[in-house]
Amino acid sequence: MSYRFPGPFENLVKQLSGLPGIGGKTAQRLAFYILSMPDDKASQLAGAITDAKSKMKYCSVCGNLTESDPCSICSDESRDRTTICVVEQARDVAALERTREYNGLYHVLHGAISPMDGIGPDDINLKQLIIRLQNSDVKEVILATNPTIEGEATAMYAARLIKPSGIRVTRIAHGIPVGGDLEYTDEVTLSKAMDGRRDL
Amino acid sequence: MSYRFPGPFENLVKQLSGLPGIGGKTAQRLAFYILSMPDDKASQLAGAITDAKSKMKYCSVCGNLTESDPCSICSDESRDRTTICVVEQARDVAALERTREYNGLYHVLHGAISPMDGIGPDDINLKQLIIRLQNSDVKEVILATNPTIEGEATAMYAARLIKPSGIRVTRIAHGIPVGGDLEYTDEVTLSKAMDGRRDL
Repeated sequence: MSYRFPGPFENLVKQLSGLPGIGGKTAQRLAFYILSMPDDKASQLAGAITDAKSKMKYCSVCGNLTESDPCSICSDESRDRTTICVVEQARDVAALERTREYNGLYHVLHGAISPMDGIGPDDINLKQLIIRLQNSDVKEVILATNPTIEGEATAMYAARLIKPSGIRVTRIAHGIPVGGDLEYTDEVTLSKAMDGRRDL
Repeated sequence: MSYRFPGPFENLVKQLSGLPGIGGKTAQRLAFYILSMPDDKASQLAGAITDAKSKMKYCSVCGNLTESDPCSICSDESRDRTTICVVEQARDVAALERTREYNGLYHVLHGAISPMDGIGPDDINLKQLIIRLQNSDVKEVILATNPTIEGEATAMYAARLIKPSGIRVTRIAHGIPVGGDLEYTDEVTLSKAMDGRRDL
């Protein structure tokens, strides 16, 4: 058997290498770095993890990441309450907010319909959207799911559910490169995509 | 001001992006991942950090990373106590142990002499090595610092300190890595490989 560092160190390496994009070598490098950190810095890092995990929740109205419920966007009276933008992930809300073009509300699905991965319409936050639209002032739902197969399928499915209620359903324009990721799209492209939205 | 996620989330992103090789985008991706982890997995990760930080220390004899003092290598009576291999970092001990060729002891310097960075001989674990060699059975000190300017300078300095005591001082060989290509080997390495040639 090859030489191993003592248990607590190996455990830290194991825990770190469980994170996405962090392999064994990187995990070991990070673990050595953490051990070399001042005690208070290391406990700040550990504290930030438990703190974020315990304090952060999802808004009961829109599903966005929030500390207070409802979230700051849902409870902001200055925002246009007749428009809801539907996104896959909370990080997409941050991406759209950075454009400073959109002033409506959001709805976070926490995923996209993907039969290949066994994710159906009931596994994402879609039913909550339909309930939210009933007896609301919403005039338009902008579907801003990713331009991937799953995102498109989700948009089509959502459009079919919402349309009978008479609410306008739009899809952000394909200014975003197909196969790309909303999170990594620059602000200008995202703004153009919002401007070029078309009726479904 | 652009949209920001609530404090605990941003704090986690900040803490993660303080780690080496982790930029803002990666930190955000990791933070989202941590939030999506089951509660017990997240607390395991946080616990591993505090645990490793509190339980891991450096061996008072050799400076290697250890849970018990002296470390498992220093306290292993089956090892050859007449040879000490000097390395820069604790991770180098693990690298050498993986070869399963070396059965002596180690001494970890925790750095290398680097006047450019203001690191002098007194800032690394070198004095402790000299003390350790006095009244010991050590017959050979292998200097296995990295083949960098700092590592070479440290090896030269250590050699000068140890030689007067009559202990044999050796330096690990420089040459072409196994599996390497002569064509792509730099001149300095090639010269060293030629210098270090041995009879077959």
